[in-house]
Amino acid sequence: MSELRYDPVRRTWVIIATERGMRPIHVQRHDKVPKPVSKSVCPFCPGNEDRTPPEIMSLKDPEAGPGAVRWQIRVIPNKFPALTIESSQERHGKGIYDVVSGFGAHEVIVETPSDEEQMADFSVSHLRNVFSVYRDRLSDLRRDSRFRYIIIFKNHGTEAGASLLHSHSQIIAIPVTPSLIAVELASNREYYLNKERCMMCDIIHQEIEDGERIVINEEYFVAFTPFASSFPFELRIAPKIHKHDFSVVDEDHLQHFAAVVKELLMRLRKVLNDPPYNFILHSSPPVNPRPGKSDYWTSIADDYHWHLDLIPRVTYIAGFEWGTGFQINPASPEDAARFLREAEI
Amino acid sequence: MSELRYDPVRRTWVIIATERGMRPIHVQRHDKVPKPVSKSVCPFCPGNEDRTPPEIMSLKDPEAGPGAVRWQIRVIPNKFPALTIESSQERHGKGIYDVVSGFGAHEVIVETPSDEEQMADFSVSHLRNVFSVYRDRLSDLRRDSRFRYIIIFKNHGTEAGASLLHSHSQIIAIPVTPSLIAVELASNREYYLNKERCMMCDIIHQEIEDGERIVINEEYFVAFTPFASSFPFELRIAPKIHKHDFSVVDEDHLQHFAAVVKELLMRLRKVLNDPPYNFILHSSPPVNPRPGKSDYWTSIADDYHWHLDLIPRVTYIAGFEWGTGFQINPASPEDAARFLREAEI
Repeated sequence: MSELRYDPVRRTWVIIATERGMRPIHVQRHDKVPKPVSKSVCPFCPGNEDRTPPEIMSLKDPEAGPGAVRWQIRVIPNKFPALTIESSQERHGKGIYDVVSGFGAHEVIVETPSDEEQMADFSVSHLRNVFSVYRDRLSDLRRDSRFRYIIIFKNHGTEAGASLLHSHSQIIAIPVTPSLIAVELASNREYYLNKERCMMCDIIHQEIEDGERIVINEEYFVAFTPFASSFPFELRIAPKIHKHDFSVVDEDHLQHFAAVVKELLMRLRKVLNDPPYNFILHSSPPVNPRPGKSDYWTSIADDYHWHLDLIPRVTYIAGFEWGTGFQINPASPEDAARFLREAEI
Repeated sequence: MSELRYDPVRRTWVIIATERGMRPIHVQRHDKVPKPVSKSVCPFCPGNEDRTPPEIMSLKDPEAGPGAVRWQIRVIPNKFPALTIESSQERHGKGIYDVVSGFGAHEVIVETPSDEEQMADFSVSHLRNVFSVYRDRLSDLRRDSRFRYIIIFKNHGTEAGASLLHSHSQIIAIPVTPSLIAVELASNREYYLNKERCMMCDIIHQEIEDGERIVINEEYFVAFTPFASSFPFELRIAPKIHKHDFSVVDEDHLQHFAAVVKELLMRLRKVLNDPPYNFILHSSPPVNPRPGKSDYWTSIADDYHWHLDLIPRVTYIAGFEWGTGFQINPASPEDAARFLREAEI
């Protein structure tokens, strides 16, 4: 049974997920590297659907013949979830500490029937479909008022935390507001109250004016290396017109978004030799009024700006980083943007 | 020239350290794994002292004969520093962003003349000497009022960020307060103001009473797996009697501290099969009065409690963790403490 625990010193939550009876061997480093699995065993490959929990939704291929693979994208509950929807939602103290039961949702989006195709290989229209599945799952989970935050993310490659090679992404819905999101919301809110402008809108305006950190600037989206990038070749993709909530993005924007993300993945693959990467979709949290917090959430549509953070995992996180909460980045964002712009893909 | 940049969204600093003319090949993952270097090349081995910048201090072996290796522990400036003491200390804005010049100190403590001996192998008295060098360097750097924080840490193993196998640790002194430290200081302060007790003293009291997360409980120190451990087998070592500042710890405490750390490293090596690890010394920041902040810093001696955080690096940091700022820990701290206690070393 997993649980969320609060660290009173660092003021952050942690999920202790020990469903499976941990033994030290399970956490030894050499045991963590995923091995390629054959198609007959891979739980995400067509034909092995019974190896996963019952599917939540799927996108069928309308043109497929009777014998062909029927689904193109498939959403399933995670077989080894960090949090479960069946748990009761309990909060209690334990002396100086705080505990919340491991209530939540943990879903997997199998992005393709193919065991080999990676996201950078997807057609733009297939990638748009993947993002429309993100949108629909986000929209559905936002209706559950017990969730404080819903995160959609992708781990590509072993060092980025992927445990299966078959291309997939994940959704986790949690009953607390993560510390990092609380900071992001607070800084956006404070900025908006001071200036009556969205901070991300101002950042985008300045980035386009400066130009040196821009990688793609098209009709609807801008992609740039953030000024204070924590990691080499880190990228941020944001819509140019203010919008707080990814769950209501229209098809036209999804199509452009897919084209931009595909191009960035191809540029990263070229420049960094197929790096492991994570991406994280930052959309506004569901606005669930709760005691003493209502005014905090009312204007979130004005001050939050959805975006995708795309982080190649090419540096190690060492003692300095754990001890301070900030990173030493050996690549300037300006150089990184230039290399990405100039790459021939 | 490196610089510190502030991320206005996440409210955290980042060091952009691009002294050496970055090319993408330098940050490609496969290029980051340190290769064992021979003794004739290792800059930390005796005989190669001219391969490092001039030493800051060293501890000699008083009993060594004329031909023997003279130093036992050696402190040198980092040859590729993240920050440099020669930089002027400049702060300026750049549109919406904030920049501080890359002013600071970055030192390396070569912990042993031996290329093979790891910290877990050190004798307790040698480890005490290493910690007394930490103390003396901390004490010296604390006198420079331009530093807001001084961190001492160790990276052991490739995945923990060590770039050389020869056992060493590092000190970085920085001109800003890191976000994580700011949170730690604030939570300690707030707790103290409410209760007139140190939070860590209360945590230690509760941990000793509970018992299930205790690994070592001796005369001066307690070592336990924190209740909200972010990582499997994470450990915290703290003095049982309140003390905020490691730079004034006495010899008797250092001796006990060394014995406890050595035992923990041996237990970790046994249980997790020589894992990569980081440790980070958390000592109170230097109290440098500055405008509008004086009352914040005056009672730090009462509410801050020094400690060492020891983190085996056995899990990968994936998208969820980057997106929320909190970790999914597959090992319960209670199980981890039990395995560590029961290990035969």
